[in-house]
Amino acid sequence: MGAFAVTRRNRVRRLPEKASYDELAVHAVLDAALFAHVGFVDAGQPVVIPMLHGRDDARLYLHGARKARIAKLVGSGAPVCVSTTLLDGIVAARSAFNSSMNYRSVVVFGTGRMLEDEGERLVALRVISEHVLPGRWAELRPPTARELAMTAVIEVGIESASAKIAEGPPQDEAEDYALPTWGGVVPVATTLGRAVDDGRLLAGVGLSQAVAALEGRRL
Amino acid sequence: MGAFAVTRRNRVRRLPEKASYDELAVHAVLDAALFAHVGFVDAGQPVVIPMLHGRDDARLYLHGARKARIAKLVGSGAPVCVSTTLLDGIVAARSAFNSSMNYRSVVVFGTGRMLEDEGERLVALRVISEHVLPGRWAELRPPTARELAMTAVIEVGIESASAKIAEGPPQDEAEDYALPTWGGVVPVATTLGRAVDDGRLLAGVGLSQAVAALEGRRL
Repeated sequence: MGAFAVTRRNRVRRLPEKASYDELAVHAVLDAALFAHVGFVDAGQPVVIPMLHGRDDARLYLHGARKARIAKLVGSGAPVCVSTTLLDGIVAARSAFNSSMNYRSVVVFGTGRMLEDEGERLVALRVISEHVLPGRWAELRPPTARELAMTAVIEVGIESASAKIAEGPPQDEAEDYALPTWGGVVPVATTLGRAVDDGRLLAGVGLSQAVAALEGRRL
Repeated sequence: MGAFAVTRRNRVRRLPEKASYDELAVHAVLDAALFAHVGFVDAGQPVVIPMLHGRDDARLYLHGARKARIAKLVGSGAPVCVSTTLLDGIVAARSAFNSSMNYRSVVVFGTGRMLEDEGERLVALRVISEHVLPGRWAELRPPTARELAMTAVIEVGIESASAKIAEGPPQDEAEDYALPTWGGVVPVATTLGRAVDDGRLLAGVGLSQAVAALEGRRL
């Protein structure tokens, strides 16, 4: 694995010492996050919406309703920005200026392509499903022709990207350590709990193995 | 409180039955989320980055480095989209098509304005600080002139917005309830843990009251 070239598009301006352009670092955050915020431009207006994603090597996959605005825009070669952030802590410094958050984030720049080939579309849908719920695809019936016709599947090549990891205690001004002010971190954890069935299981149906494997997982 | 007019810009296309244009619903999600993803357009390229936010009535406040690209663009009247999402569950339906997430999200459209008046800037910085760590501002020394000079403070009027709340069990196709497939939800919880000091407290300094009040909070 290599690194992304640092260009005007992906260069991290703020706190550049926390930035990484390493492909492995970018992929690790994309894989840890269950969803992303996807940005596109609609008649000059920036639009950012949450979407599920999946990654296969240097490609991201997204899906949505075939009729959705984002499907038409992003699927037709428009530039797209996929950003995702995992919050790890609130950093309470001895000044407001140095107070911040601990987090893992990535910003990906790419170009969308609408997938039309049924084989490619099924691969991409499986990648998205397996990203959120590994092992679940094999437990489910295949998509129907009607479902596939209603679904837009978009490939976004990761052309450029950066990761940013903020961790550890506050970094206060030297003179502020003389203040009688508490400084430290409030950890933030996102965890998956015990699965709850919908009360409509057939007799004898136990908990899905794929779902059971997720219980207690921390993002 | 009223509702946002439904226009081309904020109309929810996908699963419109989960949408709300009510100001209270939009504000509740903005207030529950500790940070947001902010989208803007830089020379035709959509850019989405995570930022802390604070809300005062129908205004959002953002801050960043004075020299940051987003400060220059967003602070100078460019259109901006502020989107935030709280993940509440993984919805494991009996088909991939109906599998999804439970979440609370908002998408806000507005126009940025760089605040230059020192009084306005301090109010906005306090709103952002109090949003993340209520009560902390009064525990901290005031910002210095140098810190203020390095900080861009941006006001975004909430011109248009929508909220989307997805909750509850999977909604499967009628015939899929006859399948021997588990269906239900894996809850996702984001919680604040026990605060950890940075080991540099002066003798006799106890845990911040503002920080203590956050421990155990669920977003």
